[in-house]
Amino acid sequence: MSLTTPLTAAGFPPTVGGMERRRVVIVGGGFGGLACARALARADVEVILVDRRNHHLFQPLLYQVATAGLNPSDIAYPIRSVLRKQSNARVVLGEVVAIDPAARSVTLADGEVLAGDTLVVAAGARHAYFGNDQWETHAPGLKSVEDALEIRRRILLAFELAERSDDPDEIARLLTFVVVGAGPTGVEMAGAISEIALTTLRRDFRGIDPSTTRVVLVEGSDRVLGTFSPSLSDRAQAQLEGLGVEVRLGSIVTEVDDRGVSIGDERIPAGTVVWGAGVAASPLGDMLGAPLDRSGRVLVESDLSVPGHPDVFVIGDLAAVPLGDGFVPGVSPAAIQGGEHVASIVSSGRRGPFRYKDKGSMATIGRRAAVAELGRLKLSGVPAWVAWWAVHIAFLIGFRSRALVMFSWGWSYLTFQRGARLITRAWRPGGTSG
Amino acid sequence: MSLTTPLTAAGFPPTVGGMERRRVVIVGGGFGGLACARALARADVEVILVDRRNHHLFQPLLYQVATAGLNPSDIAYPIRSVLRKQSNARVVLGEVVAIDPAARSVTLADGEVLAGDTLVVAAGARHAYFGNDQWETHAPGLKSVEDALEIRRRILLAFELAERSDDPDEIARLLTFVVVGAGPTGVEMAGAISEIALTTLRRDFRGIDPSTTRVVLVEGSDRVLGTFSPSLSDRAQAQLEGLGVEVRLGSIVTEVDDRGVSIGDERIPAGTVVWGAGVAASPLGDMLGAPLDRSGRVLVESDLSVPGHPDVFVIGDLAAVPLGDGFVPGVSPAAIQGGEHVASIVSSGRRGPFRYKDKGSMATIGRRAAVAELGRLKLSGVPAWVAWWAVHIAFLIGFRSRALVMFSWGWSYLTFQRGARLITRAWRPGGTSG
Repeated sequence: MSLTTPLTAAGFPPTVGGMERRRVVIVGGGFGGLACARALARADVEVILVDRRNHHLFQPLLYQVATAGLNPSDIAYPIRSVLRKQSNARVVLGEVVAIDPAARSVTLADGEVLAGDTLVVAAGARHAYFGNDQWETHAPGLKSVEDALEIRRRILLAFELAERSDDPDEIARLLTFVVVGAGPTGVEMAGAISEIALTTLRRDFRGIDPSTTRVVLVEGSDRVLGTFSPSLSDRAQAQLEGLGVEVRLGSIVTEVDDRGVSIGDERIPAGTVVWGAGVAASPLGDMLGAPLDRSGRVLVESDLSVPGHPDVFVIGDLAAVPLGDGFVPGVSPAAIQGGEHVASIVSSGRRGPFRYKDKGSMATIGRRAAVAELGRLKLSGVPAWVAWWAVHIAFLIGFRSRALVMFSWGWSYLTFQRGARLITRAWRPGGTSG
Repeated sequence: MSLTTPLTAAGFPPTVGGMERRRVVIVGGGFGGLACARALARADVEVILVDRRNHHLFQPLLYQVATAGLNPSDIAYPIRSVLRKQSNARVVLGEVVAIDPAARSVTLADGEVLAGDTLVVAAGARHAYFGNDQWETHAPGLKSVEDALEIRRRILLAFELAERSDDPDEIARLLTFVVVGAGPTGVEMAGAISEIALTTLRRDFRGIDPSTTRVVLVEGSDRVLGTFSPSLSDRAQAQLEGLGVEVRLGSIVTEVDDRGVSIGDERIPAGTVVWGAGVAASPLGDMLGAPLDRSGRVLVESDLSVPGHPDVFVIGDLAAVPLGDGFVPGVSPAAIQGGEHVASIVSSGRRGPFRYKDKGSMATIGRRAAVAELGRLKLSGVPAWVAWWAVHIAFLIGFRSRALVMFSWGWSYLTFQRGARLITRAWRPGGTSG
């Protein structure tokens, strides 16, 4: 099937009423793509949302899955269910392998072509290894449910292997966890791992003392949470250190292997390394014939369209949208606002520049420890944690998830338990633990 | 390391008080092994429980994970947590690869040897493919969390692929689900798949109608639930048929491949096949030098010890314990009672024959559909379903699981939703869906 083949009728019955409605094809069911689809619910268009996964993921809580606090289905929801009642929307499970911006069409891996009057590309980004992609095996990033389950497996297995060992050096290595990158994900991971060791697992082992766990947070710049105010960075660092996390600023990782990491000449033997640094935009951005920034993000027009293709839009983490001296940050509110902006252009036919409305930033560090910056209001500690908790619960899509998450967390809070502490995949000795 | 190497001190500090306590090594953290360990909590022995997984699994509810009703962590619990407060118990994550009944020792895959004064083998069983092990790829059984997640993935993916197809035959094939074996697992799977199609997914798709789903339950004998009274088998079959399940009795599967199954000359094209037939005991049973039955179960003495090795016991699904004309059934109450029986021998030093106390049998078919046989009391429909529900909730280990499961089910019941509908592992076109 070539790119010029028109959309087949495969699974797509003709439009009711005989009128040809305009079609909007959206690539990606993350915050941006889903917000765009939902904002088009009342528009007289046909929406096709294609994603290679069947679920929308509430990424801000993914670290909770990686640290056994939540189940995957607490924070992931079938896209099909989210759009169930939206009769003008169809969901296609498929992987986009090519994009033709002139034809406003995408080609799926099985050869099917989906063409639209409008094309919205919301394919997101991953973490970047800065030319050292071989590190990914040893230091997975945290972007998908699979990533989170793999990291959970490694963290829990490290304690199990330490319990089995009688070599003090090896026990110390296994109980060392290195988190690279002190953005929100890194800070949350470091805090949560430290908490697991100090509370949840405290009494589970006989041969090791989990409270001897060492958590090292490595950051290349001179402060944690670089997108926050310096005063909040300081407070976040103090809260991390209160949880026993070693914060290493101005430190560049120069090597990662299955035994640990190197920071220049210093070697940190570690059993588990988690990567939370850098941004690498989806390779789909490169197929739009538009200029990219250093991270591979598409430099879009002020209305989020691709230069030269007014009906092709890029939103979310894949878009580089100028704002002041820099760019709109790669956060979920920006993706949602971008999706709604494009939907409004499609519905109204009127174009205007995208204006990002900063609703503030938050990062959680542990139980009753967080920082939040809401306009000029700066919070840390318990008030920030309460605010963080309330906002994230409220944002979760679907009441079921919301209630279950609240219940799950309420229970964890009371008991220090983490319910999702499963090592799935049979454990094989000799298999890599790192 | 040889089998005669004594237990090393690896991770095992010396016994407090200087007195050498007797050591009980238990292989397997299922119902039998865990019950044995817990029943030894007050005994003056050291308990070592070894399992190749870190979690105990509440297998009777595993079909709920396979059908997206529950999360894995709702029914699986870290063994380490279950035994946290039992100070005389240690948990070892490791795979037993050899057993020396004379030395009462087991060898782990990494070479470590665990020797005890008493050895309890509770390694369980899987489903049997009757010499056709190559069918397992196309028709997975349901024994582990991984099995359940794989079956869930296949069921959900079948609907997604059907939605993508424009070939009526292929859609019909993808929407055909064959369950082999009409024991409790097969009956529960068939009922749950039918319910998902009729209720949960009913409005999620645009190109297909999930209510056209065909669920075929294939059974070699002349009735479903062969261990129940014939009158309850009839009622169970009627309830299954009420849910739209095709029950095929006296039917032997002669071929399974990636396009469906054959029953003699009849071909049933199917997208998903689930295997719930037969019993194949753990291969560890073969290392005890004792006679085995046809399924590979160890023919034990009346006190559950291995002939010739009075301090080596076999309990649970791996044991063949004569009872009347047959054997004690392979159900969780029998495993628990066996574990407690062995613990009582170890604690008291007094041996007596194991007496299985039949507490009744239950199988669920769907919402408000079940059968239960409690002594002479026979229930079906709503009363049986309520009884099934109450017993299974009460049995779940750990309050957290109990409360969450109740909540999860309460919510599912009200909304017909199933919360765990995730296809994890990225979907790859051309990858096998069967």
